[in-house]
Amino acid sequence: MSSRVLIVGSVALDDVKTPRGQHHRVLGGSASYGSIAASLFSPVDIVGVVGDDFPPEHIVQLETCGVNTRGIEIVRGGKTFHWGGEYSGEMNEAVTHFTELGVFEHFNPTIPDDYRENDFIFLANIHPALQLRVLEQVKKPKLSICDSMNLWISTERDMLIQVLKRVDVALLNDQEAMMLFETHSLPTAARQLLDLGLRHAIIKKGSHGAQMFSNEGTFAVPAVPLDTVQDPTGAGDTFAGGLIGYLASRETLDEMSFRQAIMVGSACASFVVEDFSVRETARMSKEKIRGRYEKLQAALHVDPVELG
Amino acid sequence: MSSRVLIVGSVALDDVKTPRGQHHRVLGGSASYGSIAASLFSPVDIVGVVGDDFPPEHIVQLETCGVNTRGIEIVRGGKTFHWGGEYSGEMNEAVTHFTELGVFEHFNPTIPDDYRENDFIFLANIHPALQLRVLEQVKKPKLSICDSMNLWISTERDMLIQVLKRVDVALLNDQEAMMLFETHSLPTAARQLLDLGLRHAIIKKGSHGAQMFSNEGTFAVPAVPLDTVQDPTGAGDTFAGGLIGYLASRETLDEMSFRQAIMVGSACASFVVEDFSVRETARMSKEKIRGRYEKLQAALHVDPVELG
Repeated sequence: MSSRVLIVGSVALDDVKTPRGQHHRVLGGSASYGSIAASLFSPVDIVGVVGDDFPPEHIVQLETCGVNTRGIEIVRGGKTFHWGGEYSGEMNEAVTHFTELGVFEHFNPTIPDDYRENDFIFLANIHPALQLRVLEQVKKPKLSICDSMNLWISTERDMLIQVLKRVDVALLNDQEAMMLFETHSLPTAARQLLDLGLRHAIIKKGSHGAQMFSNEGTFAVPAVPLDTVQDPTGAGDTFAGGLIGYLASRETLDEMSFRQAIMVGSACASFVVEDFSVRETARMSKEKIRGRYEKLQAALHVDPVELG
Repeated sequence: MSSRVLIVGSVALDDVKTPRGQHHRVLGGSASYGSIAASLFSPVDIVGVVGDDFPPEHIVQLETCGVNTRGIEIVRGGKTFHWGGEYSGEMNEAVTHFTELGVFEHFNPTIPDDYRENDFIFLANIHPALQLRVLEQVKKPKLSICDSMNLWISTERDMLIQVLKRVDVALLNDQEAMMLFETHSLPTAARQLLDLGLRHAIIKKGSHGAQMFSNEGTFAVPAVPLDTVQDPTGAGDTFAGGLIGYLASRETLDEMSFRQAIMVGSACASFVVEDFSVRETARMSKEKIRGRYEKLQAALHVDPVELG
């Protein structure tokens, strides 16, 4: 029996250019990516805000994937968060052309009453003050995951630390984690995250995959080898969505469930980058996930050492 | 019964500065690092050249580790290859302060007759023309591994491709592999390496570990999590040395042996960076390797996915 997942973050329109193509006003935003991936495994309630320029087909798209969109506030006369960016080379990082926050600038998430008892919460990358506001509105969840970004680490470090102390899992990329603790060592950064009281520090490493640290050790997975990446936008949020969606479908949250969830998240991320926006994740199936999972698992298999 | 390993490359004196300290004229060079790691598992014959300024204690150090140094030519009146460099930040790459090639400039490896039948050959990073000269002098080995660097990829690409077509394993870092085939995709670069007829493409990824590609799939290991890296010099060559030394100790060279060898190489590399020069690798034991191997193996363990 799956638990309900609450995902709070941005719902956006993206203009994306990569060496493989260019698309305008496609569905974007951390909460959109996360919700679509999570919804393959567990029921999802999304909370976000858009303007009345937001194409209804994007709402239909989310609903078709099984995401409950009642928590998306539509502001009359407002403009939806609109991001434009471009990837080149190894596509590990985007160059932002413009960021029009629109109604997202004054986003103040109000969690509908019937979402407040959700056991699984993904705080996608928004201002740490808003993440705290969400945490104040919800009952004690079984599992809360917090993402963030370099901007908040620079400008709102203390508040971000407060958020991290109140959640179970930190989800950051390697540069962010090291920046947060001013270290050049990822294991040191992970140790400091765990010292905040977090159960897991999950580090996203782009084309190098992901690595989880906990008091029970570390677990690392490579990215699924793909010859062609169309658009890396949303890979991290899709990873997070698959991860929390899978965990919400489990009866126990032991260490192995987290390892499996990292694998599922990686599998989801490997799909999202194969097309623009959420096109490919919307086409995911459990069977496709299983196939990628097994491929990744094979890439991790090794026998004990034999030393003469 | 271990086979003998032939290792051809540089034997050098290094001036190294890192955030953890600074050391002058310590033992360096790709062949030195590779030989000391390999010698823990199999007998090693090293071929290189030094000047008569080369401190005899470095020869003693190599011999103490079990490396046969008869193939190190000592040029009277010549200067040993002397490199000076500095690491900062994440220490993924050194800034070179000076490179005095000395006698290494005219290195023309002559393989002693009794080394020519060695079954395992590691061509450390030297000019591809010299790597070809080595291959012309040896009998058909069971396994040959070739390293290289960005300089030869830029200036001697055709000759390097000739070398790669004649060996069994290419050992490159991720940037070099992608540069060689002008791609931004590591899986694409690996595929092109295999298309040259190589059995394995082994990609070094610095603090992100290593990944092997073959026609039987891919295998990835993270770096052993270390809180403190003293000096990353020689990590790649130590990885290669541990890898080939372990393979030379095996009876069969099946895919699993290669996976184990990647793990052993990673374990060796995790030791070398814990101190300057070869200090820590000279102190390695099979028991210490086993410990790190088991730690890495635990970091790769995951159960099959459970999808409802």
